[in-house]
Amino acid sequence: MAITHSSPSMRVLVCPSGFKGSLQPDEAADCIEAGILAVEPDASVRKVPLVDGGEGFTRALVATTGGTLHPVVVTGPIGESITSFFGMLGHSRTKGNEHEPATAVIEMAAAAGLSLVPPQCRDPGMTTTFGVGQLILAALDAGARRILIGCGDSGTCDGGAGMLQAVGARLLEEDGHPIPNAQGGGSLLRLAAIDLSKIDPRINETRIDVAVNWHNVLCGPQGVAAVFGPQKGATPEQTHLLSRAMEVFGHVAGLVLGDENTGLAPGGGASGGLGTGLRLLGATLRPRFDVIMEYIALDGLFDNCDLVLTAEGGIDDQTPRGKIPGEIARRAKKQGVPVIAIAGTIGPGARINYDVGIDAFTCILQRPTTLDDAVSEAERLTRESAESVMRIVAVGRMLGLGGRGRGVGRFHD
Amino acid sequence: MAITHSSPSMRVLVCPSGFKGSLQPDEAADCIEAGILAVEPDASVRKVPLVDGGEGFTRALVATTGGTLHPVVVTGPIGESITSFFGMLGHSRTKGNEHEPATAVIEMAAAAGLSLVPPQCRDPGMTTTFGVGQLILAALDAGARRILIGCGDSGTCDGGAGMLQAVGARLLEEDGHPIPNAQGGGSLLRLAAIDLSKIDPRINETRIDVAVNWHNVLCGPQGVAAVFGPQKGATPEQTHLLSRAMEVFGHVAGLVLGDENTGLAPGGGASGGLGTGLRLLGATLRPRFDVIMEYIALDGLFDNCDLVLTAEGGIDDQTPRGKIPGEIARRAKKQGVPVIAIAGTIGPGARINYDVGIDAFTCILQRPTTLDDAVSEAERLTRESAESVMRIVAVGRMLGLGGRGRGVGRFHD
Repeated sequence: MAITHSSPSMRVLVCPSGFKGSLQPDEAADCIEAGILAVEPDASVRKVPLVDGGEGFTRALVATTGGTLHPVVVTGPIGESITSFFGMLGHSRTKGNEHEPATAVIEMAAAAGLSLVPPQCRDPGMTTTFGVGQLILAALDAGARRILIGCGDSGTCDGGAGMLQAVGARLLEEDGHPIPNAQGGGSLLRLAAIDLSKIDPRINETRIDVAVNWHNVLCGPQGVAAVFGPQKGATPEQTHLLSRAMEVFGHVAGLVLGDENTGLAPGGGASGGLGTGLRLLGATLRPRFDVIMEYIALDGLFDNCDLVLTAEGGIDDQTPRGKIPGEIARRAKKQGVPVIAIAGTIGPGARINYDVGIDAFTCILQRPTTLDDAVSEAERLTRESAESVMRIVAVGRMLGLGGRGRGVGRFHD
Repeated sequence: MAITHSSPSMRVLVCPSGFKGSLQPDEAADCIEAGILAVEPDASVRKVPLVDGGEGFTRALVATTGGTLHPVVVTGPIGESITSFFGMLGHSRTKGNEHEPATAVIEMAAAAGLSLVPPQCRDPGMTTTFGVGQLILAALDAGARRILIGCGDSGTCDGGAGMLQAVGARLLEEDGHPIPNAQGGGSLLRLAAIDLSKIDPRINETRIDVAVNWHNVLCGPQGVAAVFGPQKGATPEQTHLLSRAMEVFGHVAGLVLGDENTGLAPGGGASGGLGTGLRLLGATLRPRFDVIMEYIALDGLFDNCDLVLTAEGGIDDQTPRGKIPGEIARRAKKQGVPVIAIAGTIGPGARINYDVGIDAFTCILQRPTTLDDAVSEAERLTRESAESVMRIVAVGRMLGLGGRGRGVGRFHD
């Protein structure tokens, strides 16, 4: 079924996030493209699957820049050895400048992600980011002079303490004894001082950018332990203790940084406080989407685009707080490009997204069902949902073009 | 959020069916209207909730014509006494012609509907339409000279045998003995002849129109027992016996009617074969939607209308076979008015509806859920689904009007 030739073919930008647990971003983009082309075979579709700083971050940047992946054995979040990886960016993003310093990409989730923590071990007071520090050292060994670290999907809440210990920092108790390595965030209740004198000297010569959710802070009622602790398996008691540990860590880190607002710094709570730990290494925290826009070279993303279709597993009141559909919509709105979001589920308070630039959102479900069944059908449901959206858009276009006598179904004839 | 004033306000026809078990047609229409006005406060919305011949048929016609409801105690489908009702049409539909004969409206479901059969009694070989015949007599007693009977939602499969007996017909076995009253469809296996000599003489002076699903036939592989028996609670064995009983009834009825194709006559299978039984009284079977279009005076339904929103509990491969969204779409398409259908669930083969004139359909669900939860939330879900549809239509309209710089969200500013 094609739109009449009297209306120009549409230029659609498809930039979905993944549907956690079912579709990867590129798979979601393929499904949405198929749904669009089923309605408008002449449409020009540009697919830009997007990741936040979490799982998939390294592979996406390496793929986009023609870079390389490097496996490394590190200490995982519960202390066991795991095979992790970092990436080295290729040069395709440097737009001809071959002299740009070698840049490594690390996703913290590859060494300390929640998916690496077996359900029975999910106590964020015990898990560690030690492996993230080991990835940093491995990247330096590989010649990286610039490191981009992605935060998201973490299974830890140690303020980056393990990472700091891995690169040579010492976390000291009141009596001057160092806290043993990789004990997790709970041990920070005993933290009195941080000694950075013995960290790997190469770190001081390295520019470290960290892609964070700008809305995540270390301390306070919106602090990372309070907001994410339960998701990571903390009981109310553990969450309370962990919040206090982050307050202690935030206070001590603030002394080192000379910033008494460290506990409330934007992004300082990213990945269980890893953001704050990385600040102690001189890293720069940046809104993850800005970093992605820069590294994936998305400037001009909305040029020559009539309509944007984005997607995420869930659209709810958190979507405007740094989630991909919210970030896409905010930017598209500035350029007046309409945005429609396709969701696996629509959650409480989703209406707020109408204010950030998502013009409409819809859910892929077709019948009462279980989450498992929906996940197993996600490809078909997403494709058919995109088709339904484009059919309704086509109805609207014809009304805009002058309406009567042009039902979409007409183009079957 | 309103569409820019540069685009004229839309004229939307809202003509949903009900969502069985949750929303009545008028409730669904109210929800959809609310969703439309949330997006386009200036839209002119015309609500025409629709019923098929089943539950709600009498009330809808009486309400539309300013008529009256008349309670009657009759024999219910399982033989107990129930308080049923018929209606007398008002004169508002006669467009000034006060001399039109008094017209009664009967919905068979009010005397023999499935909802009147307790689950443990659901054997369509035993249930009877006797009460339907009693409603006919009551309507005649009330002075009706014309009777409109709606079929749908029946709990019977007796070919209208009980109805025939109630008005004076005798169903004879081979030996000439009459089959006792109200024994249900199973007893028709013994049917050898039908004696109409003693039916109420007023019936011969009365025009009887029957609103049926034109696709329902009495006999054969698509016969009413085979297709609907299981829905009405018949086991495979009962379904087989009942199919044979309908074959016998169709043969004998064909002899009376002088029509050897009686078993395959369109609508003859309506409401468990009641359509065929009514033919024996000289009734005229008519596609239910044509009758509704006439009696609810829907001529010109699509005049001055830019867009049609219809709805039904389920959209699937049966929707084009006489269901309201399919009938609405077929008519709207002839006049080139686009139709969007809102569904409680989208079932197998729903795509076929794109060919009958439904330009797009969407499902109201927002998350994996149970049917019960969906039913309990149906009002909100339907309203928000209509809002989502209109928001996507608005995006399309703006693209049709020239696109860029006019995202719907923009009109929040």
